[in-house]
Amino acid sequence: MQSIDAAAATPHTEDSTQRIAALNRNDKPFHVVLAQQFDRQSIEQLCQLSDMIRTIANTRQGTQFLRTLLSHRRAMLYFIQPSTRTFLSFTAACQILGMPHNEVRDRSTSSEVKGESEDDTIRVLTQYFDLIVMRHPSEGFAEHVANMLNKMPRPIPLINGGSGKDQHPTQAMLDIYTLLRSLAQPKPQRHAPRYTADLLAGKTIAFAGDLKRGRTVRSLAYLLCRYSGMRLLFIAPPALQIGDDIIKYIERHGIEHEKLDDIRPVIGEIDAAYMTRMQDEWDADGESQSIDYANYSLTYEMSKRFKDNLVIMHPLPRRGEIDERIDTLPQAKYWDQVKNGMWMRAALIASTFNCDGAIRDHYYAYYTY
Amino acid sequence: MQSIDAAAATPHTEDSTQRIAALNRNDKPFHVVLAQQFDRQSIEQLCQLSDMIRTIANTRQGTQFLRTLLSHRRAMLYFIQPSTRTFLSFTAACQILGMPHNEVRDRSTSSEVKGESEDDTIRVLTQYFDLIVMRHPSEGFAEHVANMLNKMPRPIPLINGGSGKDQHPTQAMLDIYTLLRSLAQPKPQRHAPRYTADLLAGKTIAFAGDLKRGRTVRSLAYLLCRYSGMRLLFIAPPALQIGDDIIKYIERHGIEHEKLDDIRPVIGEIDAAYMTRMQDEWDADGESQSIDYANYSLTYEMSKRFKDNLVIMHPLPRRGEIDERIDTLPQAKYWDQVKNGMWMRAALIASTFNCDGAIRDHYYAYYTY
Amino acid sequence: MQSIDAAAATPHTEDSTQRIAALNRNDKPFHVVLAQQFDRQSIEQLCQLSDMIRTIANTRQGTQFLRTLLSHRRAMLYFIQPSTRTFLSFTAACQILGMPHNEVRDRSTSSEVKGESEDDTIRVLTQYFDLIVMRHPSEGFAEHVANMLNKMPRPIPLINGGSGKDQHPTQAMLDIYTLLRSLAQPKPQRHAPRYTADLLAGKTIAFAGDLKRGRTVRSLAYLLCRYSGMRLLFIAPPALQIGDDIIKYIERHGIEHEKLDDIRPVIGEIDAAYMTRMQDEWDADGESQSIDYANYSLTYEMSKRFKDNLVIMHPLPRRGEIDERIDTLPQAKYWDQVKNGMWMRAALIASTFNCDGAIRDHYYAYYTY
Repeated sequence: MQSIDAAAATPHTEDSTQRIAALNRNDKPFHVVLAQQFDRQSIEQLCQLSDMIRTIANTRQGTQFLRTLLSHRRAMLYFIQPSTRTFLSFTAACQILGMPHNEVRDRSTSSEVKGESEDDTIRVLTQYFDLIVMRHPSEGFAEHVANMLNKMPRPIPLINGGSGKDQHPTQAMLDIYTLLRSLAQPKPQRHAPRYTADLLAGKTIAFAGDLKRGRTVRSLAYLLCRYSGMRLLFIAPPALQIGDDIIKYIERHGIEHEKLDDIRPVIGEIDAAYMTRMQDEWDADGESQSIDYANYSLTYEMSKRFKDNLVIMHPLPRRGEIDERIDTLPQAKYWDQVKNGMWMRAALIASTFNCDGAIRDHYYAYYTY
Repeated sequence: MQSIDAAAATPHTEDSTQRIAALNRNDKPFHVVLAQQFDRQSIEQLCQLSDMIRTIANTRQGTQFLRTLLSHRRAMLYFIQPSTRTFLSFTAACQILGMPHNEVRDRSTSSEVKGESEDDTIRVLTQYFDLIVMRHPSEGFAEHVANMLNKMPRPIPLINGGSGKDQHPTQAMLDIYTLLRSLAQPKPQRHAPRYTADLLAGKTIAFAGDLKRGRTVRSLAYLLCRYSGMRLLFIAPPALQIGDDIIKYIERHGIEHEKLDDIRPVIGEIDAAYMTRMQDEWDADGESQSIDYANYSLTYEMSKRFKDNLVIMHPLPRRGEIDERIDTLPQAKYWDQVKNGMWMRAALIASTFNCDGAIRDHYYAYYTY
Repeated sequence: MQSIDAAAATPHTEDSTQRIAALNRNDKPFHVVLAQQFDRQSIEQLCQLSDMIRTIANTRQGTQFLRTLLSHRRAMLYFIQPSTRTFLSFTAACQILGMPHNEVRDRSTSSEVKGESEDDTIRVLTQYFDLIVMRHPSEGFAEHVANMLNKMPRPIPLINGGSGKDQHPTQAMLDIYTLLRSLAQPKPQRHAPRYTADLLAGKTIAFAGDLKRGRTVRSLAYLLCRYSGMRLLFIAPPALQIGDDIIKYIERHGIEHEKLDDIRPVIGEIDAAYMTRMQDEWDADGESQSIDYANYSLTYEMSKRFKDNLVIMHPLPRRGEIDERIDTLPQAKYWDQVKNGMWMRAALIASTFNCDGAIRDHYYAYYTY
């Protein structure tokens, strides 16, 4: 049996070809475990598929069609790490596709698992379910399970809903979907290949806040490196700047970047601002208390200097990083981001079960004119 | 943003025309927040709709029809205050209408909401769901949220499943449904306008127990004031009598009423007895321990003096207020009341999404002859 | 009202004709409460029905058919005793049959049940649901509830999902299903009456481990006594041997049996090995710490001596009783056992609602050639 630590120890900043290939075998289910698994073509296809699903779901007969797609499969949401938002997003995605689901939210409450290895618990679940969506506190555990599943007689696919401080690939996918979808506005002519354009070329994309400890920025950075021609600004308190592993990864891909410690002087140049909260739950000794977060926040006064097409994103929850009065401005995309997550997760689940073809056929048959 | 305290401070004993209008705008979804929102016509229509749904659900093809009505919508049961009974009643109502649902039962278990305002939490939920059913410990919070939803680009309807010590409008609706339905027995000729008659005229309706601290009696009192010609008896320990605000409300509507402190002498005159338990969880210092609850209880011996058509109700849970041997008497309607709650909640949800017409059409097409 | 203690006190080792008849009345729903309720014919029919359901569920149109069977009913999973495995197995079974379900997992979290008798709680649930699946810590409680339900105006069926240390009839049914299905391999010619043969005649069936405190072995023993011609080995530490009540029951049925305290000398003679873990959560004072469990465990080295058709079973969770390297051997049937439980529970629920005929018709119409 592969050790969890061994999996976790593999550096995540490399496109570990071998690891990705193991998750992506032709003779096994497709497992969504690492953001690095997605190349530019798959990003574009999934964004387009998400658009199609949301358009189809806009009509009553469309929702009925979608609900037939996976009504013959069952999903297990194994969410051992507390999470409401991601959990609800996945359950909504399952419901859109008509897929019955069940959940395990707290392994410790079950008397039945006393003394049982977690591998055995997972093996039992694979007998009842056709998909595991997993959120787990241990880095590398989702990858370990995906590899374990591949060794079973009837492997089922796994989707990583967040593992430890490290990977959260579906969040990364919804983030890039929101970014590309917002930049592609105003909507191109129907049928036009919306996501194949170089939407990021020439854009300035800022990440602001606690970049060291937030995994969403890390995961999104991997996906951005599938594109070129943009400039990345990492705006953080020096003690909480983005990790060197990410910087090296970006440099290897030839992406222009800069480290700053105040968003205010540059707000007028930015095309997309990815705001994040202080992750003070990781503080050893309250060290982030002394940081003035005004440098990494958007006030209503600053909105005068926003570009018209600025894309403001936030993985949520927010604290004070974005003034509530910004919520109703056209630049605010963080509520859309929530909804985009639901559509993107539906697209990922549908793809896992090879329903993307049926969705495309239905879309072209009924929703284009 | 409207303050919660401001909303809660508005006196609930008035038919606050302005507040009700805000919940009932033509250009916004219909929010069920206050018992006072329902006039006599809407009470009658909802009782009739509940009857239709239960009749339709009695056949297999009927249940299949009902399950198509809202299969394209999703409900969020945001039940922050512990509740099993109301929660299950709403989930059963959703299932009758084929509506997928999800739940948030305990906001504190989510790591994601740390530091997030509850308004933001709700805003996130509106991205995933088409309806919020809310049970919340804070008075006025449901109303605050309804008004907040109306300001969002895509407002969704809200149903108040109980807010604090104050309002529980769906309980009030199921109570009046049970009362009217029981008094309308024996069933009038099919097709007859069952609920438009003056069913309460000349009836003596008693409320017994801890009337000060039980919100169900308060909410039901609002609805009874849509009717006339009945006599209300409030039978409670003096320290736990019904609030003066309710008495004033009743007097303003010209309803005859009396305060008593023992049900035993009057049991033979009563047409409907709404029994309630001691709400001793609100005791500051065990002050209700010394009260002899026999004055506010029904024993099996008393059943000899029951009117034949007496309607015994109880919001449950019961302790000793009703002897278990009464359960099998025809006068016991408290188990029906539970079931009526499920049908009434289905009727309310269906109405919220304008499915009442489809239900009526189906009913008249297939279930009358 | 029947007392719970009275029910529990009735000796469970007898085929208590009267108790079984009460659960099995023609004018009432069929309640699955005791393993002893199943005679050989009903075991065979349920095994066959389970096979049919799994075959039908193997095609997409088959799953769609199955999901229409109980879409007009609703199940309550009242699982007061912590359980994940059995709970998920039942929810999966409900989903296979398209039956919406709800759950009560922890009675104590509900503010509404404060001071309410558990009988009242159940009475309320019967108003919302068409089936109760119950897991409860008290011995005899499921039987008490079944009898209480039969006294209500609209009785609904109950399935016992495990009551106290005593009965777990659906586990017993999945165990015997796994045993018979495995012994019937290689699969007889299609259409052949697979389960009516004397599959156990001449077989040696071993139970190993903590036989005193594990209820699965007890329940399975009742069902095995419907068969004859086999030899049972009870292999346990002397302090944890199978109870005398079971031995007497077996002797009354004329089944050959033996008590041993080491599996290693006899492993080569065994046709079926039912392994169990130490139930040390029942220890008063850690008395089982000193037991060497190697005598009751299967190591990889021992697999050389396994019969080719040995059937290795385990109710799970396992600790060290079965080496993980045995998992991939053809003799390992414990993962199948998990899946068999889901199919058998679907068969039991379907039978409870008299859907077995529809399933058989569908099977013979589409899945035999």
